[in-house]
Amino acid sequence: MKIAILGFGTVGRGVYEILQRKETNDTAQLEAAHIFIRKGKEKTLSVMTDDLDVILEDPECRCVVEVMGGIEPAHTYILKALRKGKHVVTANKAVVAAHLEEFLETARQHQVQFRFEASCAGGIPWIRSLLQAKRIDAIHTISGIFNGTANYIIDQMVKKDLDFETALTQAQAAGYAEADPSADIDGIDTANKAMISASLAFDTICTRDFPIGGIRHLQKRDLQTFLQNGCSIRLMMEARKEEDRYAIAVVPTLIARDSLEANVPDNFNLTTLVGSTLGELKLYGQGAGALPTGNAVVSDLIAIARNEWDDAFVNHHLHYDASLLKGDYLLRENDRYQVYHDVTPQWMADRYREAMTGDAGAFWAKIPAKGE
Amino acid sequence: MKIAILGFGTVGRGVYEILQRKETNDTAQLEAAHIFIRKGKEKTLSVMTDDLDVILEDPECRCVVEVMGGIEPAHTYILKALRKGKHVVTANKAVVAAHLEEFLETARQHQVQFRFEASCAGGIPWIRSLLQAKRIDAIHTISGIFNGTANYIIDQMVKKDLDFETALTQAQAAGYAEADPSADIDGIDTANKAMISASLAFDTICTRDFPIGGIRHLQKRDLQTFLQNGCSIRLMMEARKEEDRYAIAVVPTLIARDSLEANVPDNFNLTTLVGSTLGELKLYGQGAGALPTGNAVVSDLIAIARNEWDDAFVNHHLHYDASLLKGDYLLRENDRYQVYHDVTPQWMADRYREAMTGDAGAFWAKIPAKGE
Repeated sequence: MKIAILGFGTVGRGVYEILQRKETNDTAQLEAAHIFIRKGKEKTLSVMTDDLDVILEDPECRCVVEVMGGIEPAHTYILKALRKGKHVVTANKAVVAAHLEEFLETARQHQVQFRFEASCAGGIPWIRSLLQAKRIDAIHTISGIFNGTANYIIDQMVKKDLDFETALTQAQAAGYAEADPSADIDGIDTANKAMISASLAFDTICTRDFPIGGIRHLQKRDLQTFLQNGCSIRLMMEARKEEDRYAIAVVPTLIARDSLEANVPDNFNLTTLVGSTLGELKLYGQGAGALPTGNAVVSDLIAIARNEWDDAFVNHHLHYDASLLKGDYLLRENDRYQVYHDVTPQWMADRYREAMTGDAGAFWAKIPAKGE
Repeated sequence: MKIAILGFGTVGRGVYEILQRKETNDTAQLEAAHIFIRKGKEKTLSVMTDDLDVILEDPECRCVVEVMGGIEPAHTYILKALRKGKHVVTANKAVVAAHLEEFLETARQHQVQFRFEASCAGGIPWIRSLLQAKRIDAIHTISGIFNGTANYIIDQMVKKDLDFETALTQAQAAGYAEADPSADIDGIDTANKAMISASLAFDTICTRDFPIGGIRHLQKRDLQTFLQNGCSIRLMMEARKEEDRYAIAVVPTLIARDSLEANVPDNFNLTTLVGSTLGELKLYGQGAGALPTGNAVVSDLIAIARNEWDDAFVNHHLHYDASLLKGDYLLRENDRYQVYHDVTPQWMADRYREAMTGDAGAFWAKIPAKGE
């Protein structure tokens, strides 16, 4: 199957390398016929072009891989490709979170596939696991660590007793954090993946108005306090469904030190789904990087080449009900910790914003319920 | 798709319950048309029969689920069903480990599928993950905790400071261990799953002559010693491949307390594969139980109903090379611990057998290499 790759950054190069290796029968049948690069960039490979129409008008090119990142022009290019009857595979969580319904609907109209395994949790086959679990079970809870940068920073803070700024600087030096780390440390990236995952898990289009917490104001003394109480902390997303209601939150979460989550090292991800007969299923792996993310893109390409259709329907329309994620939360404000019992993450996010007006160092987190 | 279930024990009932629930479109299309029970057993459901020919001669029954357990008559019935052109799904690790090549070859001849997701790690989609990872990558290492009973016993010993016998008795009372626990605590069950997993991962038929260790002689004082050294212990399998050589071992393994493996609670399983571009992928879930194992069986049925074919080829013929698993091992003999560096598990298993002739309480385990 001939494919086109739009964008040749980290993930695009990873996809190209895996296709060049031809390590298996399945990968040997995929050919990168076009690589779309920006006008003015040097064409270092003969398959490179800066003319999208060359790709759109090539009838032999059945599938377009979008790995440019960002909302535009990715959104426009994906729609153009789908409308030309080409399957689309993307690794771009921002554009999927923003336009999932439009992409799925356009793909359905043109009888092609829109796949996005690489948009959540990198190399972990998370989307596939969700869809395959849904063949049998109702999924009522998903959760997990979906941002490797935040995990790396926390893990370094715990293991090397660093403060946040030092850990962030080291993560930037190691290539795990970007120059502007906001999307990772403020929970935006995790929120994109939470929206995509919950939309699939619960068959609905989740909107963006759920509470999003981050780790920007996590201090060494917080960690020391948590560890003294037998807990570590991770930036987690959690989503629940009950009948026709759902809720999502992205919140720093205290967890027992002997939980799997508390022991996720470096920049790894750990994702969880709970099915009605399957029970708890957790997947751990590389959530980023050229080859793991490239691997996820290629797994989608192979599924398309094999004519395997997964059902990413988004039909039902659920209502957001913040009470589904009621729990116990902790707020550090003016050097004092206060615990709030049985409140919604929305309420806590509002309370936190108040606290932030007085003191730039406030921090909030979910804490385990008694007995957990 | 009409199916027949051979056997109505724990797993058979789990499969039947999931089909009766009809929670999804996929499960609603599966119908348990026959349930085969032993002669003399009471037929509590109208679909029950003690006549296998009723099933074999029913042209509408396209798929047979074997959940009787044991080698015979399961082996004979599976072959009969395949030769009648019926797909076969089994949860029976003993019969798959003993006859995998014959089953795959017979299925190939009759152009039907032979599937066995439920034979390894219960509800964890381990076989599917292995096969799908192999679409892209060479798999060079697999490992993991594949026996929930042994894990439950060790976890209870650690958390409640119990001796082995007390933990075993409690596991039996809780329904996690059988009256004769040998297969679980002596590593036989893990060895079956290791053979099946390694055969698929490495495209070869692995033979049974690899070293198999167990936890029968693990003592409270061993655990205390390990914990004082920052380690816990788990009964693990490990298999490696390099060029045309492979090795497998089932060995109690010391692991850092902050590893995921050391924090697997209760009777859960944790399985790992390492792919050339994917990196490390770990899956955690329920390794046993009616509904999780039934879920794995039903996932195979749905794949068959959807006409999805995974490639469980077993072609290459590799040589066993014990040196691939060389490492550092610990032996407790006459109350003294001794460490052996850079030896094969075979050599250690022999050394352990010698130690056992003198003292019934000897114990051996793999220890992390320096720097790990």
